[in-house]
Amino acid sequence: MNLIAKNPNFESEVREKLKKQFFMHHLGIDLSKIEAGRVEAVVTMKDALKQQNGFLHGGVTATLHDIAAGFAAFTLVDVGEVVVTADLRVSYFYPGDATKYRTVGWVVKPGNLLYFCESEVYAVYEDGSEKLISKSQSTMATVKVAVIEANRK
Amino acid sequence: MNLIAKNPNFESEVREKLKKQFFMHHLGIDLSKIEAGRVEAVVTMKDALKQQNGFLHGGVTATLHDIAAGFAAFTLVDVGEVVVTADLRVSYFYPGDATKYRTVGWVVKPGNLLYFCESEVYAVYEDGSEKLISKSQSTMATVKVAVIEANRK
Amino acid sequence: MNLIAKNPNFESEVREKLKKQFFMHHLGIDLSKIEAGRVEAVVTMKDALKQQNGFLHGGVTATLHDIAAGFAAFTLVDVGEVVVTADLRVSYFYPGDATKYRTVGWVVKPGNLLYFCESEVYAVYEDGSEKLISKSQSTMATVKVAVIEANRK
Amino acid sequence: MNLIAKNPNFESEVREKLKKQFFMHHLGIDLSKIEAGRVEAVVTMKDALKQQNGFLHGGVTATLHDIAAGFAAFTLVDVGEVVVTADLRVSYFYPGDATKYRTVGWVVKPGNLLYFCESEVYAVYEDGSEKLISKSQSTMATVKVAVIEANRK
Repeated sequence: MNLIAKNPNFESEVREKLKKQFFMHHLGIDLSKIEAGRVEAVVTMKDALKQQNGFLHGGVTATLHDIAAGFAAFTLVDVGEVVVTADLRVSYFYPGDATKYRTVGWVVKPGNLLYFCESEVYAVYEDGSEKLISKSQSTMATVKVAVIEANRK
Repeated sequence: MNLIAKNPNFESEVREKLKKQFFMHHLGIDLSKIEAGRVEAVVTMKDALKQQNGFLHGGVTATLHDIAAGFAAFTLVDVGEVVVTADLRVSYFYPGDATKYRTVGWVVKPGNLLYFCESEVYAVYEDGSEKLISKSQSTMATVKVAVIEANRK
Repeated sequence: MNLIAKNPNFESEVREKLKKQFFMHHLGIDLSKIEAGRVEAVVTMKDALKQQNGFLHGGVTATLHDIAAGFAAFTLVDVGEVVVTADLRVSYFYPGDATKYRTVGWVVKPGNLLYFCESEVYAVYEDGSEKLISKSQSTMATVKVAVIEANRK
Repeated sequence: MNLIAKNPNFESEVREKLKKQFFMHHLGIDLSKIEAGRVEAVVTMKDALKQQNGFLHGGVTATLHDIAAGFAAFTLVDVGEVVVTADLRVSYFYPGDATKYRTVGWVVKPGNLLYFCESEVYAVYEDGSEKLISKSQSTMATVKVAVIEANRK
């Protein structure tokens, strides 16, 4: 599918949004590729991202999916619109036991109101090999920035 | 439903696991109640947990669900077993704009192998009022600790 | 939660829609209760609804959820609007081995655009006892009837 | 991914199961391709499969997903095992307005206990063109036939 960005400045809009993505920075996640309808992000493993058995915490995996899918949708919305997650569904295939993780998110079906997205999280090993450890399906909804501002107290 | 813990020491087992839940500590999440098949957790809002519009990051919400549902299931498993998330499905009702969040997770249907769980995340406002901002359904799978250790390199 | 119907004639609107719900009739499903934001449906087991092991087919269970949740949302929309399913997520707890099934669907979070719903399917045994065999979470989206008609070829 | 069937007779096992798939026959669904870890099914539109606006009923779409994903997993299980759906999550992209539908299901991640699957439903138009109208993610669990028989009253 050839996805068309309504906003020609989508990449700089994404980069502007990233500055205030505090949680993403707190986890050390970087957006490594930004294309129309498709983004990639990477994160390096550290103790702070682990659950009790030493594996990547499922909440980090869910966060990687949410960021990759959400920004993939955001590249396609109109000027003055943002994207909120309506639902996110994550399948966990393998525990994360690598030193690095890579996530790819893309829009499966764009719309005026709803964007259906998917994303994958790969464990990246020191020898460069990768393993698909998790996959998500999500529904993203567009919201006018003006509406968000009006609801803010 | 009256849920029975197979392991009478489930509460101390959970508290032991918590010590190594580094990601949970990194986010400032505390498990505030531990009962057979039901747990609660709380977290205080801070900049590090925000997304670009100033609301609670959807990844934090997903993490709260994963922790509440996962530990709810873990209270019911047998000695020598742990719980891994097979899938987690999160619905987002409202953006998180409060100073505190509370999550409750419970087991809807226990089993030998699979535990079906649900969880809720509430925004807790300074006047003490609460709003349900997100809900999850999840499938948790039991794994023998011996199997995890055998697969660890 | 006290749900308010925007359309005071929601019950007759639902009954009108039901006449053309051919698939529902094909399966023998009846809507037994219609309230603002909550509906119930029932179906009697027959060979045509079975999968290869003699249990209720998972597709019938999913259909019961879709109908219960979808009509629960439909009771709350405005005049001139209908509801389409954006996503439906079904958990299967037990195989359906009863002579009758009852489903209840309700709106968890209404909105202008999206309705978040849940539903349950119960196996109803001959002695009157019930067992919860499946549960769903769904996201329903409102669409103007005028838009549907304009897209029809 | 190159998927290996543990049971060399998987195709005849599937065809044997199909004879008792009464609900599938009731809807007119045919399994058109059976490979290791991947199956296809087709159905022709008829009034009995429609919802109130004249489109394919969402329950039929969910049934197509359940059958395609479930049989894809079933081709990979061991002799004496069957597959039950633990959870099924369906996204609906477009209303079904075609004269025929085709579904493809495949195993994304096989296992001893859990099979993670995906499936797609395409509307097939009279000129031969196709449109992806729905996609699913599912978790299938293996069960020993002996266990099912023991639980049957």
